[in-house]
Amino acid sequence: MEIIKSNQNQKVKLWNSLKTAKGRKQSGTYLLDGWHSVNEAIKANASFQAIIGTEKQIEEHLSEIPHGVPAIIVSDEVANHIADTNSPQGIFAQTSIPNNSFDPKYVHNGKWLFLDSLQDPGNIGTLIRTADAAGFYGVVLGSGSTDLYNPKLIRSMQGSQFHLKVINDANLLEFTDAFIANGINVYGTSIDEKAVNYKEVTFQNDFALILGNEGNGVSQELLNKSSSNLYIPIYGKAESLNVSVAGGILIFALI
Amino acid sequence: MEIIKSNQNQKVKLWNSLKTAKGRKQSGTYLLDGWHSVNEAIKANASFQAIIGTEKQIEEHLSEIPHGVPAIIVSDEVANHIADTNSPQGIFAQTSIPNNSFDPKYVHNGKWLFLDSLQDPGNIGTLIRTADAAGFYGVVLGSGSTDLYNPKLIRSMQGSQFHLKVINDANLLEFTDAFIANGINVYGTSIDEKAVNYKEVTFQNDFALILGNEGNGVSQELLNKSSSNLYIPIYGKAESLNVSVAGGILIFALI
Repeated sequence: MEIIKSNQNQKVKLWNSLKTAKGRKQSGTYLLDGWHSVNEAIKANASFQAIIGTEKQIEEHLSEIPHGVPAIIVSDEVANHIADTNSPQGIFAQTSIPNNSFDPKYVHNGKWLFLDSLQDPGNIGTLIRTADAAGFYGVVLGSGSTDLYNPKLIRSMQGSQFHLKVINDANLLEFTDAFIANGINVYGTSIDEKAVNYKEVTFQNDFALILGNEGNGVSQELLNKSSSNLYIPIYGKAESLNVSVAGGILIFALI
Repeated sequence: MEIIKSNQNQKVKLWNSLKTAKGRKQSGTYLLDGWHSVNEAIKANASFQAIIGTEKQIEEHLSEIPHGVPAIIVSDEVANHIADTNSPQGIFAQTSIPNNSFDPKYVHNGKWLFLDSLQDPGNIGTLIRTADAAGFYGVVLGSGSTDLYNPKLIRSMQGSQFHLKVINDANLLEFTDAFIANGINVYGTSIDEKAVNYKEVTFQNDFALILGNEGNGVSQELLNKSSSNLYIPIYGKAESLNVSVAGGILIFALI
């Protein structure tokens, strides 16, 4: 088995480059960090370039690594170098970024989450994980959001990208038009008083929910296009809710 | 007005020490960072040792600084030094930690959130902000949780500590016993199948909700004492929900 001990090794340089959007684009791959995520990828038959780990981690998981996938042992120093966290578990996978092409014209059902220009990778990852827990069919990240394969976002998703459809860098105006044309309600979210209290919305099997940017909310263009817009009443003195929390409240109220 | 340009200044050393629990304990104070938090403290008539800012920030807010509170100008270098973030706004307040003594025997109503050994300061702050938005009366942090005045926690709270009662370093077993003795239901949360689907709980005016540690949940001792235990059904393949999201779902479902 290949053993790599130097941060100057070409493979190590490649894995380290996956922390940046540029490096991920050039190689068409991203890095999973930690056994939980690697294992979710294995269960989903993801396409791997390599599974990388310290001697201890590779030994522990050797029987679970799929046939034909190169397993590479790295030193603790290399593991710390390629990880995005301070104390990595010491097991990683270089994984293909799936082909993202998707035409919303062919969507006729399912529960969907649209994320409009969200910036915080922890919020985006947590919302994808929440949509997964709620049994949603897919999440659509509008262009202008943080890249789906950002290392912190990957950590927050906890493998949910292998459980539901996640579409990166999409045009949410097109998605909204296509869904409404196909008879699927698209709910915006807003603090405008013309919006509807979410508790007054009746259950539907198929819909999309739009959540917006941490500071500015959902764009006015999308709010104008949506079927209707929801708000969460605030009873106390806080000015607003964190977008992950607001999303969780709405997602679990609508299912 | 006093102007400080050196990180070696004794006051600067004191403000910088407030990043640690030890420094906060020694001085009985903590540091607010950013005008939003400082302004919430002013509106709540908090007790200030000083309001500290760059020349630009102090000029901008001078008319809003309460009479009798020392305003101190600092250089950008000092502002960056005492801040816990990379790009601070440049305005701070050194504020007294309020007296925390509180006897749960005298509580006969209100909506309360109990946090059992939560570790992530972002989760704790977000949950306090969410309880505030939901009009809760108070939040009780069990001992073993991250300290309430941790800088990241303070940022995530966004000033909610000035809107509702927040009790630090409390004995949650005592709180649970006292609330139940006073006829207030205390709901634990659990993924145990003996727990009750939260959607089946009927509305009550007065209750406490317990949320638990990110990895281990609510302690068994508390789950044994509670009136009943709730769970959120998972419909997809995610193993669990982020605790802030789970808390948001339960808090807004119960009100």
